[in-house]
Amino acid sequence: MAGQLRLTTGKDEDHFQHQGAVELLAFNFLLILTILTIWLFKNHRFRFLHETGGAMVYGLIMGLILRYATAPTDIESGTVYECGKLSFSPSTLLVNITDQVYEYKYKREISQHNVSPHQGNAILEKMTFDPEIFFNVLLPPIIFHAGYSLKKRHFFQNLGSILTYAFLGTVISCVVIGLIMYGFVKIMVYAGQLKSGDFHFTDCLFFGSLMSATDPVTVLAIFHELHVDPDLYTLLFGESVLNDAVAIVLTYSISIYSPKENPNAFDTAAFFQSVGNFLGIFAGSFAMGSAYAVVTALLTKFTKLCEFPMLETGLFFLLSWSAFLSAEAAGLTGIVAVLFCGVTQAHYTYNNLSSDSKLRTKQLFEFMNFLAENVIFCYMGLALFTFQNHIFNALFILGAFLAIFVARACNIYPLSFLLNLGRKQKIPWNFQHMMMFSGLRGAIAFALAIRNTESQPKQMMFTTTLLLVFFTVWVFGGGTTPMLTWLQIRVGVDMDESLKEEPSSQQEANKLDKNPTKTESAQLFRMWYGFDHKYLKPILTHSGPPLTTTLPAWCGPVSRLLTSPQAYGEHLKEDDVECIVNQDELAMNYQEPDSSPSSPATKLALDQKPSLGTPGKENIYEGDLGLGSYELKLEQTRSQPQMD
Amino acid sequence: MAGQLRLTTGKDEDHFQHQGAVELLAFNFLLILTILTIWLFKNHRFRFLHETGGAMVYGLIMGLILRYATAPTDIESGTVYECGKLSFSPSTLLVNITDQVYEYKYKREISQHNVSPHQGNAILEKMTFDPEIFFNVLLPPIIFHAGYSLKKRHFFQNLGSILTYAFLGTVISCVVIGLIMYGFVKIMVYAGQLKSGDFHFTDCLFFGSLMSATDPVTVLAIFHELHVDPDLYTLLFGESVLNDAVAIVLTYSISIYSPKENPNAFDTAAFFQSVGNFLGIFAGSFAMGSAYAVVTALLTKFTKLCEFPMLETGLFFLLSWSAFLSAEAAGLTGIVAVLFCGVTQAHYTYNNLSSDSKLRTKQLFEFMNFLAENVIFCYMGLALFTFQNHIFNALFILGAFLAIFVARACNIYPLSFLLNLGRKQKIPWNFQHMMMFSGLRGAIAFALAIRNTESQPKQMMFTTTLLLVFFTVWVFGGGTTPMLTWLQIRVGVDMDESLKEEPSSQQEANKLDKNPTKTESAQLFRMWYGFDHKYLKPILTHSGPPLTTTLPAWCGPVSRLLTSPQAYGEHLKEDDVECIVNQDELAMNYQEPDSSPSSPATKLALDQKPSLGTPGKENIYEGDLGLGSYELKLEQTRSQPQMD
Repeated sequence: MAGQLRLTTGKDEDHFQHQGAVELLAFNFLLILTILTIWLFKNHRFRFLHETGGAMVYGLIMGLILRYATAPTDIESGTVYECGKLSFSPSTLLVNITDQVYEYKYKREISQHNVSPHQGNAILEKMTFDPEIFFNVLLPPIIFHAGYSLKKRHFFQNLGSILTYAFLGTVISCVVIGLIMYGFVKIMVYAGQLKSGDFHFTDCLFFGSLMSATDPVTVLAIFHELHVDPDLYTLLFGESVLNDAVAIVLTYSISIYSPKENPNAFDTAAFFQSVGNFLGIFAGSFAMGSAYAVVTALLTKFTKLCEFPMLETGLFFLLSWSAFLSAEAAGLTGIVAVLFCGVTQAHYTYNNLSSDSKLRTKQLFEFMNFLAENVIFCYMGLALFTFQNHIFNALFILGAFLAIFVARACNIYPLSFLLNLGRKQKIPWNFQHMMMFSGLRGAIAFALAIRNTESQPKQMMFTTTLLLVFFTVWVFGGGTTPMLTWLQIRVGVDMDESLKEEPSSQQEANKLDKNPTKTESAQLFRMWYGFDHKYLKPILTHSGPPLTTTLPAWCGPVSRLLTSPQAYGEHLKEDDVECIVNQDELAMNYQEPDSSPSSPATKLALDQKPSLGTPGKENIYEGDLGLGSYELKLEQTRSQPQMD
Repeated sequence: MAGQLRLTTGKDEDHFQHQGAVELLAFNFLLILTILTIWLFKNHRFRFLHETGGAMVYGLIMGLILRYATAPTDIESGTVYECGKLSFSPSTLLVNITDQVYEYKYKREISQHNVSPHQGNAILEKMTFDPEIFFNVLLPPIIFHAGYSLKKRHFFQNLGSILTYAFLGTVISCVVIGLIMYGFVKIMVYAGQLKSGDFHFTDCLFFGSLMSATDPVTVLAIFHELHVDPDLYTLLFGESVLNDAVAIVLTYSISIYSPKENPNAFDTAAFFQSVGNFLGIFAGSFAMGSAYAVVTALLTKFTKLCEFPMLETGLFFLLSWSAFLSAEAAGLTGIVAVLFCGVTQAHYTYNNLSSDSKLRTKQLFEFMNFLAENVIFCYMGLALFTFQNHIFNALFILGAFLAIFVARACNIYPLSFLLNLGRKQKIPWNFQHMMMFSGLRGAIAFALAIRNTESQPKQMMFTTTLLLVFFTVWVFGGGTTPMLTWLQIRVGVDMDESLKEEPSSQQEANKLDKNPTKTESAQLFRMWYGFDHKYLKPILTHSGPPLTTTLPAWCGPVSRLLTSPQAYGEHLKEDDVECIVNQDELAMNYQEPDSSPSSPATKLALDQKPSLGTPGKENIYEGDLGLGSYELKLEQTRSQPQMD
């Protein structure tokens, strides 16, 4: 099969650039329409179509228009040459050597050799852009923001449960989906719809892992708006954030699983290699992301950058972005790195920023998150019509549909049961039902599926993933509010109340109930909490207790170097440690000490509600799309002479 | 000359992606170093190397390292095939058909046919990225921010002068540089360094127009820091912003000037075509940018988007970006469109935004401006070593050096003289000297020069431009502070004082001096001011006077539709119009009426210094790089129930 050479001249470059501007413009208008529609819905308290769903609808409409309103254009705008007859140097060479570009009908077979170069649709071609854009441009801001806006208190309070759902739950989900799909694949082979060698078990597992990445952004937004119980919110949010990370690495590990013999057989060596690969990549990305956050914390602590908020914000942004790039360059996963970078930045660096920078970084990442999310969902809608190689197979779709529900149930219910054995504050049934219901699929599943669509099975997986995303976002997203009512989950919760209630009741419960398991786990968390409070935070932030008191004497010079002047005013609160350690779900409640930095020239009231008199509390609903209510009081007087 | 085909496989794509991450990472580190160095300098009040100059230095160092530390790598990683022997379909085809990519030494001749495909430096190749990135990605935020942060009062007060310098001055500068360079080119032809047909007069004019774009960002930053006289600041700022626009369109108009006969002869038809083209593009871009801003103003006025700051900010951003894309798609100049979009947004839309959105948009564009500027200057430093086709010619460089000074003098002094005939507040000699001194070249000149480097003359122009940018930024940027002292230009000016002083003295002067020219110009400005105040602002913002009173009766329904409830409280301030009309440089002072919208739930103290008791004053130094001192007091209580 010979390829054809099509030569284009410089003029076509201008044409392409105009084309680029036109397409970006069309996308912009889509997004603008989405924003206006969102506003309309919010204005009328219409909670059945959330913005992500709305963005998808507009993407669909635009895709429909593009497909059926744009005529196939003749892309033979240049001339065709044979290599040997070239007598001049054109500036660019557009070479088309794959068949699939020319096929614009739904087909089940890879197109044969009959290439029809005179048909085609240049616009459709352009709008199915490189899937790597998701992983390199659109997903990082979303994931970083998720990490950065993590509400630490509730998160750490439920840490064990969240980790269980995220790791164990994702693996369970992956395996269950894999098994069910394998069953359906067997049926399809039997029915003659698939060839026997197309779909191995590992492919089914691959599908399972990518479908295990839940994205309840729609549900969470509604939770936020209605102020649903913060524990439920945190469980769902934490789980979704971490299971994205797990799913990404798991997908990669499965894809490199290459047994030496029959792909359907279990190759122990290859299996352990994949497991090792998973752990290595996960740990490595975690380390990389945290390392950059630590560097940022140290830089912001030891320089007086807080006087220059723009420089501080710029540094923060660039270092966080570098975490992503470094992980990618090192062959790890940039997205996982950027997630943990965000969490660590929120835990340490945030405390060192000036109040201006705190606001700037928060708003910057909020904005990027907002844009990126809407772009992704718009694009998903578009992809239904612009992707050239969909393969719709009713059996496969049905199988996947069933699989995700069964898998979600196998994930949530058994694990909740196990967790409730150890938790002080049990996860009630209605929470479990809500979590079961909230297993929406979204951006991550889509991005993982679109990454590789070269073979037929992969195309089928992509089509199915897309349809499931549509279904779950529209149906389950839309059904969130009625479901909350039906399950009688309380809304309008004052977060402060819920925090205040626990200590007293917990302490009493503690005295009565001395479960040795709790004491063991308490030990673990107490160690971490103590370590973090005594060493990590004083090193990386301005909080006390001063390292000169906590580190051994021979570290003297280093301690003095690392201890911030403000730290000397604070001492180790032993009583507090005991008290709060007893309040965890497994007998530990992670509470931030009252150590917000108060440099002389800055009064920060950003995260606090002074009227309640309890400092240092987090606003779980902060960082929303500007929907929640908050008091933003930012006063800042500079030490420089005031001009105006 | 036959082209060579080099086929790459999928693996090489991964390699390229890693490469991309590595290069972006290197660039990130450059920027981080730049930020840290800037901080160091600011901390020690070291004003001789500003951040733009520092960014260039780091770029230079990195370029040096890249060139001499990276060995030429063998880029023949794929295999070479002949067309006829293709027997399979690889996924991608990398075709190199130009010679110049392979040449990595400084040469004066375009390389001959001996292509050496086995040498090369892939990293260097990649880091000389597409110059269109400047015009499509990096420059728009900078230019938009310049328009958006324009300090309107002083700007309109000096509007006539600014327009004169920007239009007339740029044209004068262009012509003078063109003439001087033409002289030098003739000498070079005589000396045998150039062939006679290489450099036409239009090429010299082209060089003149791109070199006329001044970029005193360094100087302005220092002015800001030291609080130099606001009139000087405004003149310089306004001139630089507008002359960028003029230079861009002028460069394009000159480049399309194609006389039918001898290129050196004056073809009237072609000349007028170019002039028409210039006016058309300029006016069209202006209209496009303003149109989008008007749409944004109307949208933000008639929807209650202010309750959702993120949606509002998103809309604002997308519509502004659409202005750019639309202009590009329509064959106009996106950058000029985005400039006027920014100015119009600041004039109308800004007043409609909620205080949260005002802050968010300001900070967002500040941040983008900061990043983009540092990237561009870093890249300029890098380009000295990574650009493969520099042509250093001592005569040309010397000629250009002389030319820009002579041209600046021909621009500033005669025009100042003419303007002083009409201005009430003369431009003193020391201001003129400072303006003469502040003719730095920067991003725009660089971007215009790098856009087309295909021929030898163009490469020589690019090299010369780059060197002049280095020189002016380092030497003149560094010399700004001593120059200010030497010229005895006052610093530490309280802007409010300077505004209060004028009215009384002006009014007295007015009574004595009744120049008919002033009255005529006053008429023109008075018409614009009245029109804007009575019709445009009430239509596009919430300010009064209400259209129901100002529009004729038959517009009744439309007037009621367009008038905002808040407008009814304000009436036309006739006395104010008279008073302020008399205060312009040409007898008109544009002053914003005391009509800041005060919706019940929002108290905005953002732009004001309440202690002075004069509302509505602009902080000319706001929007800096977080350097200036300001009081940021933002209180906002929402109407929604407060959660925490």
